[in-house]
Amino acid sequence: MKDSYVPEMMTKEDVTAMILSAKKQAGLTWEGIAETIDMSPVWTHSACMGMQAFPKAKAEALVAALGLPQEAASVLEESPTKIWEQTVPTDPCIYRLYEIVGVYGPTIKALIHEKFGDGIMSAIDFDMSVVRVPNEKGDRVKIEMSGKYLGYNSW
Amino acid sequence: MKDSYVPEMMTKEDVTAMILSAKKQAGLTWEGIAETIDMSPVWTHSACMGMQAFPKAKAEALVAALGLPQEAASVLEESPTKIWEQTVPTDPCIYRLYEIVGVYGPTIKALIHEKFGDGIMSAIDFDMSVVRVPNEKGDRVKIEMSGKYLGYNSW
Amino acid sequence: MKDSYVPEMMTKEDVTAMILSAKKQAGLTWEGIAETIDMSPVWTHSACMGMQAFPKAKAEALVAALGLPQEAASVLEESPTKIWEQTVPTDPCIYRLYEIVGVYGPTIKALIHEKFGDGIMSAIDFDMSVVRVPNEKGDRVKIEMSGKYLGYNSW
Amino acid sequence: MKDSYVPEMMTKEDVTAMILSAKKQAGLTWEGIAETIDMSPVWTHSACMGMQAFPKAKAEALVAALGLPQEAASVLEESPTKIWEQTVPTDPCIYRLYEIVGVYGPTIKALIHEKFGDGIMSAIDFDMSVVRVPNEKGDRVKIEMSGKYLGYNSW
Amino acid sequence: MKDSYVPEMMTKEDVTAMILSAKKQAGLTWEGIAETIDMSPVWTHSACMGMQAFPKAKAEALVAALGLPQEAASVLEESPTKIWEQTVPTDPCIYRLYEIVGVYGPTIKALIHEKFGDGIMSAIDFDMSVVRVPNEKGDRVKIEMSGKYLGYNSW
Amino acid sequence: MKDSYVPEMMTKEDVTAMILSAKKQAGLTWEGIAETIDMSPVWTHSACMGMQAFPKAKAEALVAALGLPQEAASVLEESPTKIWEQTVPTDPCIYRLYEIVGVYGPTIKALIHEKFGDGIMSAIDFDMSVVRVPNEKGDRVKIEMSGKYLGYNSW
Amino acid sequence: MKDSYVPEMMTKEDVTAMILSAKKQAGLTWEGIAETIDMSPVWTHSACMGMQAFPKAKAEALVAALGLPQEAASVLEESPTKIWEQTVPTDPCIYRLYEIVGVYGPTIKALIHEKFGDGIMSAIDFDMSVVRVPNEKGDRVKIEMSGKYLGYNSW
Amino acid sequence: MKDSYVPEMMTKEDVTAMILSAKKQAGLTWEGIAETIDMSPVWTHSACMGMQAFPKAKAEALVAALGLPQEAASVLEESPTKIWEQTVPTDPCIYRLYEIVGVYGPTIKALIHEKFGDGIMSAIDFDMSVVRVPNEKGDRVKIEMSGKYLGYNSW
Amino acid sequence: MKDSYVPEMMTKEDVTAMILSAKKQAGLTWEGIAETIDMSPVWTHSACMGMQAFPKAKAEALVAALGLPQEAASVLEESPTKIWEQTVPTDPCIYRLYEIVGVYGPTIKALIHEKFGDGIMSAIDFDMSVVRVPNEKGDRVKIEMSGKYLGYNSW
Amino acid sequence: MKDSYVPEMMTKEDVTAMILSAKKQAGLTWEGIAETIDMSPVWTHSACMGMQAFPKAKAEALVAALGLPQEAASVLEESPTKIWEQTVPTDPCIYRLYEIVGVYGPTIKALIHEKFGDGIMSAIDFDMSVVRVPNEKGDRVKIEMSGKYLGYNSW
Repeated sequence: MKDSYVPEMMTKEDVTAMILSAKKQAGLTWEGIAETIDMSPVWTHSACMGMQAFPKAKAEALVAALGLPQEAASVLEESPTKIWEQTVPTDPCIYRLYEIVGVYGPTIKALIHEKFGDGIMSAIDFDMSVVRVPNEKGDRVKIEMSGKYLGYNSW
Repeated sequence: MKDSYVPEMMTKEDVTAMILSAKKQAGLTWEGIAETIDMSPVWTHSACMGMQAFPKAKAEALVAALGLPQEAASVLEESPTKIWEQTVPTDPCIYRLYEIVGVYGPTIKALIHEKFGDGIMSAIDFDMSVVRVPNEKGDRVKIEMSGKYLGYNSW
Repeated sequence: MKDSYVPEMMTKEDVTAMILSAKKQAGLTWEGIAETIDMSPVWTHSACMGMQAFPKAKAEALVAALGLPQEAASVLEESPTKIWEQTVPTDPCIYRLYEIVGVYGPTIKALIHEKFGDGIMSAIDFDMSVVRVPNEKGDRVKIEMSGKYLGYNSW
Repeated sequence: MKDSYVPEMMTKEDVTAMILSAKKQAGLTWEGIAETIDMSPVWTHSACMGMQAFPKAKAEALVAALGLPQEAASVLEESPTKIWEQTVPTDPCIYRLYEIVGVYGPTIKALIHEKFGDGIMSAIDFDMSVVRVPNEKGDRVKIEMSGKYLGYNSW
Repeated sequence: MKDSYVPEMMTKEDVTAMILSAKKQAGLTWEGIAETIDMSPVWTHSACMGMQAFPKAKAEALVAALGLPQEAASVLEESPTKIWEQTVPTDPCIYRLYEIVGVYGPTIKALIHEKFGDGIMSAIDFDMSVVRVPNEKGDRVKIEMSGKYLGYNSW
Repeated sequence: MKDSYVPEMMTKEDVTAMILSAKKQAGLTWEGIAETIDMSPVWTHSACMGMQAFPKAKAEALVAALGLPQEAASVLEESPTKIWEQTVPTDPCIYRLYEIVGVYGPTIKALIHEKFGDGIMSAIDFDMSVVRVPNEKGDRVKIEMSGKYLGYNSW
Repeated sequence: MKDSYVPEMMTKEDVTAMILSAKKQAGLTWEGIAETIDMSPVWTHSACMGMQAFPKAKAEALVAALGLPQEAASVLEESPTKIWEQTVPTDPCIYRLYEIVGVYGPTIKALIHEKFGDGIMSAIDFDMSVVRVPNEKGDRVKIEMSGKYLGYNSW
Repeated sequence: MKDSYVPEMMTKEDVTAMILSAKKQAGLTWEGIAETIDMSPVWTHSACMGMQAFPKAKAEALVAALGLPQEAASVLEESPTKIWEQTVPTDPCIYRLYEIVGVYGPTIKALIHEKFGDGIMSAIDFDMSVVRVPNEKGDRVKIEMSGKYLGYNSW
Repeated sequence: MKDSYVPEMMTKEDVTAMILSAKKQAGLTWEGIAETIDMSPVWTHSACMGMQAFPKAKAEALVAALGLPQEAASVLEESPTKIWEQTVPTDPCIYRLYEIVGVYGPTIKALIHEKFGDGIMSAIDFDMSVVRVPNEKGDRVKIEMSGKYLGYNSW
Repeated sequence: MKDSYVPEMMTKEDVTAMILSAKKQAGLTWEGIAETIDMSPVWTHSACMGMQAFPKAKAEALVAALGLPQEAASVLEESPTKIWEQTVPTDPCIYRLYEIVGVYGPTIKALIHEKFGDGIMSAIDFDMSVVRVPNEKGDRVKIEMSGKYLGYNSW
């Protein structure tokens, strides 16, 4: 009976599942999808996971490219609530990033203060890329982050 | 009485305090110190904070440049035990980095898997730079990380 | 012996203790100190507690006004590392603020999204005031926060 | 079989889902809904999320305005149990508020003590607004909180 | 050298230690001290532990009664920062109270809502007594709490 | 298929749901239900929530009064496993009780030791009431707890 | 200067240190000390560690037997505050006991309910012994706990 | 559709539910069930809860005695994964055991070291009983644990 | 309705359930399965639990050997996200391994530094075996881990 | 004054500091010290860190070899209390071991059950070695653990 009066709305999780299914069936890559909608791979993956809000045009492009139902576009445009469950991530690939913050965090802070003054690198006005760099001792992952410097107010 | 039989050894914390004091009195910057010992600013600051082991020649160069006692060189060469107290860092400048790992960690993982296969970016065979990039809408912090790709074994 | 080779540098905690002592002996208030250095009471208290970096002129004004040693000025100008020990604050006065974030946080988020788009209120380009508002049913505390809206990038 | 003897009662979560669905279909905003029932947007959103108890007249106004089933009105009037799962919120928009409490909490406390005496700002006899303030360097979010001062008893 | 420029101020912990020492030497009880300053034993003990601010007259009465240094009076009048280290108290006598909150908390909440409406019992405008009640099956501890009912605002 | 071989037994949660539904439909109060079965409101609510075991006669009285299925009586008589999920309760009404334990716990302990000796107030041989006390400055909640004093053994 | 006005009182930690020193110098065992004061080894060790309050006669017997200063006797008689720092103990010998509670706790609970009714085993009106039991497959540790059954009130 | 390709296997939780249902319908006790399969009540309850692996003969005896499906026997024989969710148990009956470990753990450790040497009591080669002991001041719960002493290796 | 538009994809959990079911029905062991696909038992079990990515040929061999649906092969090849829920594992068999890391972790670190320099043992370029070693005092478990040494960069 | 009556006893931490100092001055390695006392390097380092109890002869051999004060020998023989502060170790070298337990713990458990039955590998009747294994793709760390299998009792 409950099901009859409580409406079910399409969620970001639902749309993520649709994208993953369409991606698998069509044999696409994230790079490929990103190219299709003319955005970067990092942003595209993150937004498809439900961690970013799509601009309207990009949502429609994605829905068209992957053959998703029209309702999905408006869901993709919604502002997400960003939640991660694990305070310390257990997956080794993600943990290494956490470890880098633990080891080098105070160093990044000191150099920002030295180069800019008292402030931070924004994680909002921010972009990132992940690149494979050939190297004869073993190829390397290069991660490049860029965020606007924000100086503290004094008032 | 206790003090008479328990020997006091110079620790990495002691040497960090000496470095900070010498740096302040001489009006140096981390960039400047790094140049003096011909290493990068990120590694130099991290090692001066006691989070990295100095190669012998670099330890001696630092001791000479800052006028530290000779015993400090051997302390700088010791392998550190890397400890951070706060599982979630509270300082806003460091927290933003933690937030980036929370938000974009799964994305970096997915792209590494897409570009390389099942593996990780090493945080050991690793280097990093922090650069100020002029921008008319406000200068930006650029952080560049590079780590060797390590693929999982199957055996 | 250790004390002979490890230099002691004046810290932000030391300067906070000096300020509190001078304030008590001179019978000053935070409002009064703020007025002397021509800054707001919120920023002045926070900076005196070591949570903000003083601009050079303000540091000198404070040192002069309270008769602190000259070295204190340079310490006041340093960028602080902001640490709070209690994930959930126990003091009732501060806990109520934490509770407000727990209860109304999602509401503030929803209204920012409705009024501005997908983004946040900056806690860096930020200011705040605390005012007593007379009210016949009992005076009220009015807290006013203002932070720059920062919209998420898509790239 | 279980379903046959355990009754299902409409919950606040159910009513929230109905409201969100009706809001989306009718293309409403929180400001608009608030106006309809003549309450503030902050309180309206919070109460629709199930964090506040509706006065009877307001519950009926909302049910009428959105075309909810009649039973929903009595659910809206129930006293909620206020639960938040994340001790430290991960969503960046909410985290910034948590950070403000961490950084400025002791300052707000000190100024309340200076202006009023030993006591707190009530989070119960409390109201709040969120406003967009135009600014040529970028519009700002203004949050205004007002709570009754409560002085500690001594007995 | 450090000790010469950083002033030492008398703290609430210092005054608590003085009170405990004076109490032990004079063979006093908390009931007795409370009577001397004409306050309740609960409030008196809590305030002597540094968890409450003394009204000026009471601070002076205590200082006179116990022969404390005059400076102690102003320290007793300061607003305390209330901190408890253990989220779950381990001492069995205090744990039992925590257990009572866990077991009966939702019941107290339900009865307050039934008797008053949507609101809480204040822990600020609050008082308490602890009494020994003779009972032939074994004497009982009676704890009586009284706090002002505070109803939630809707606005 | 699984459902066919794993038996479903009526649980305390099921019976709580039945009670809440019956209470709502009949427009009852906890005071009223308590009176019907001749027990106190605190115990009655707590037991209906599944936190206490009903004596046989009381279980039958409740089942009869509310028209519950007969099987519910034996479930009400079972010894509960008392679980609370939140180490620190977030609901403001319950949090205030937790805060009282944090602030006044050591005081209650000290007074029990002074009045009785080394021991505790039992939370098992225990009872409690919640009463509304009229007061012209605003009515007050009075909570009265009584528990048997238990002295530590030495052996 | 501070040391001149803040009195130092002998604490339970101080007395524990005195006992351990005297025990080592005299080559005593806990069994031997327990015999001297005619108490059990479990209680004696626990009380010497500061976790129990000594009856007056026992405190005096211990002080006499070990040649402690007279002031120690009154400290031994004080009610302790029982604190343990590690929520999950790391020492393997203590962890195994924690593990037993995790694995067998629900079983002990079920058997107490079956044999007695709804209630608990007191940890206050409680005693314990630790015995070595010869066994040809390897000697065994036998721990025997005895606590008064306390039945829950219903009221 | 998913249900058609993912097989459902009977789990230890399923078998526990079957046992509890059969026990209730037949009006059995744990003592009675234990007797039927000729094992102790502690082990029998723990194993029925899924915390122990049944020897083959005992599994078959239980299945026969309670009329469980044959597949249940093989499930009872499986090695369990022992999980408890609450680091600190909230149920008062189990918490008291946790408290005993907190208060007396270091004492048990000290006496094991004194009687045996450097080692522990095994929680694997281990057995336990729970007995009701009549006592005119109130019957007592007696818990007896016996575990093999295991001495640390040095190599 | 929801089920009609959100696609269900086969997950690693689904495939693990299929493997466990097939293994049970065919009466296989992990050693046996490992042999069939010509991999080690440790890697085989870990990969079947969803913690490793299968090389294509091994996935196909497993699917063929156990009669799994073809789609399972591609799922076995996917890179897993490695998650463990319990920061401190409660199962005694796994806890002992955690305890070994706690007790011997600093020792392993010191010996790696002594034998290799400043670096770590990789947990990625890593393999392990578990062997039963007969011993007349009781057979022993031998665990052998081998990981590539990775030295820290300095740059 | 306090120092005059509270005796200072030599602790395991003190002896560890003496060992580290003597080791550094004499230019020794852990392998070398282990050889001198005819024990393994793993055990020797662990015991020197205060995590193991020395047999009498080994304690005396170490004291003689390093020229420690005689009192140190009896301290080395004491049973240690094994404490580690970090539930999840942050040092990368130790974290990798923790990660191995997280990833492979369930696999080790499954293989022990398959090879031995329901039981565990002892961490008490246990030994370990750490070896450098030359390898042309980069030398490897080999860790070998051996612990007695302990089967669960059923009784």
